[in-house]
Amino acid sequence: MAVPAYAIGTTLAAPYEELVPRVKQALKDEGFGVMSEIDVQGALREKLGIERGRYLIIGACNPRLAHEALEAEPDLGVFLPCNVIVYEAADGTHVSAIDPLSMLGQIANPVLDRIADEVKQRFTRVIAALG
Amino acid sequence: MAVPAYAIGTTLAAPYEELVPRVKQALKDEGFGVMSEIDVQGALREKLGIERGRYLIIGACNPRLAHEALEAEPDLGVFLPCNVIVYEAADGTHVSAIDPLSMLGQIANPVLDRIADEVKQRFTRVIAALG
Repeated sequence: MAVPAYAIGTTLAAPYEELVPRVKQALKDEGFGVMSEIDVQGALREKLGIERGRYLIIGACNPRLAHEALEAEPDLGVFLPCNVIVYEAADGTHVSAIDPLSMLGQIANPVLDRIADEVKQRFTRVIAALG
Repeated sequence: MAVPAYAIGTTLAAPYEELVPRVKQALKDEGFGVMSEIDVQGALREKLGIERGRYLIIGACNPRLAHEALEAEPDLGVFLPCNVIVYEAADGTHVSAIDPLSMLGQIANPVLDRIADEVKQRFTRVIAALG
């Protein structure tokens, strides 16, 4: 499955339930805490009665980088945490992290460019670590 | 306080603890469920020992619009939920919702343009309802 320009992702043969803990461990290894988890399948079933494959949104945050970003730009919290998604697709299990440069590149603040670049490097290593 | 181009916001004299439930009610009135709440002050205190003013990130989601967006663009979950922040500022309590057009405008998908525009209209009414 093609990865869109706003994400860093991969498609793997491993089943969803095996990948979710591996993604969380890989995030931890790169200094990210899990701030939120949203079960999209469960929410859509409950609210709309719609069935779809499993789909998890993990909100990841590196506290030091988040603090620096908020000091530079108080409203930046509208973009936080940075999300990593895991979902069942036709060709395997898909994992994507947001590309923070695509999201924050529109904000003219050089401090943010540096932070977004660091988050992107860490997310790139998270995806690579999944194999 | 100036609202950046990527947000729809306002600064109010009402205290933080009074505004938070009003923001949640205004979101509910516009069809948004609260999917996540992140206490930024508490997280930074716990992880870094840093003290800052109260700062809440509310992850808001309209199930029908989220479902349509995910059908159009499976990786769109990296942008979900849409955040509304409430934080203590020097000049009052600040509330900002993300401008979904600024976030999704980079994606060439006309279905998303319509959805982002609808979310933006709803968020604009949420902010206006706070007075």
